[in-house]
Amino acid sequence: MRRMDKVDLQLIKILSQNSRLTYRELAEMLGTTRQRVARKVDKLKKLGIIRKFTIIPNLEKLNYMYAILLIKVKATENIYQVAKVLKDHEDVKILELGVGKYNIIAHVLVPKDIKKAQEKVNDVIKEINGIEDLEVEFVSDIPKFELL
Amino acid sequence: MRRMDKVDLQLIKILSQNSRLTYRELAEMLGTTRQRVARKVDKLKKLGIIRKFTIIPNLEKLNYMYAILLIKVKATENIYQVAKVLKDHEDVKILELGVGKYNIIAHVLVPKDIKKAQEKVNDVIKEINGIEDLEVEFVSDIPKFELL
Repeated sequence: MRRMDKVDLQLIKILSQNSRLTYRELAEMLGTTRQRVARKVDKLKKLGIIRKFTIIPNLEKLNYMYAILLIKVKATENIYQVAKVLKDHEDVKILELGVGKYNIIAHVLVPKDIKKAQEKVNDVIKEINGIEDLEVEFVSDIPKFELL
Repeated sequence: MRRMDKVDLQLIKILSQNSRLTYRELAEMLGTTRQRVARKVDKLKKLGIIRKFTIIPNLEKLNYMYAILLIKVKATENIYQVAKVLKDHEDVKILELGVGKYNIIAHVLVPKDIKKAQEKVNDVIKEINGIEDLEVEFVSDIPKFELL
């Protein structure tokens, strides 16, 4: 990866606060030209530094919530194999591999209704083999959600 | 909250895949007019259903990672008070209140360097009172990151 300059970092910060700004608006904020901003955004996408332009939704207002699975995989199992199964599950939205008590932390999108949520969680769990330890957290509130 | 219609839901889905699409592009995809799309996006923002337009960055390429704090607050403590302190900390990016073994799940943005990461985590922990149980997970990889 080529080294990023200061303007790249500023651009990433600004876009993380509002990804709908036009090239013209971004250029004004950064004191540069539209063309240069367009090229930079393109570069950041190509390099994979920007993975996606997205929205942060209020899940509760859409009648959803997250269930977080904290998974410790058995020492005899391949963590990446377990992660692969979870990654391919459409309701698993955020999948993180971790160093610590648990190896895998998975955010699963489930209905706000706790009974339906439990069913959905069971659906996901029964697809995974080799679990040594598992904790399920139902997220009741998300007071802060930023990415950078 | 007023009931959302099918087009609102489609709009949310599309924007979560690409939040930079113009009103014109969105209108074409949804078979409606630019004006109607603009009004809908405005409404979804006002109702707080869209919390933010943002980007998902590749943290690793920016030399950062997440540390996840799994916190069980003492029964005698006020969870919301603890959450408030964490929310106000600028390095705490995602703050979730949970029902389960842990009450609070916090994603902290830390340098990729494990020694500096540990220091940053300690900075955050020492500000919180009333912890009964704490696990720290360092996120080594994020194979999937979607929000909806």
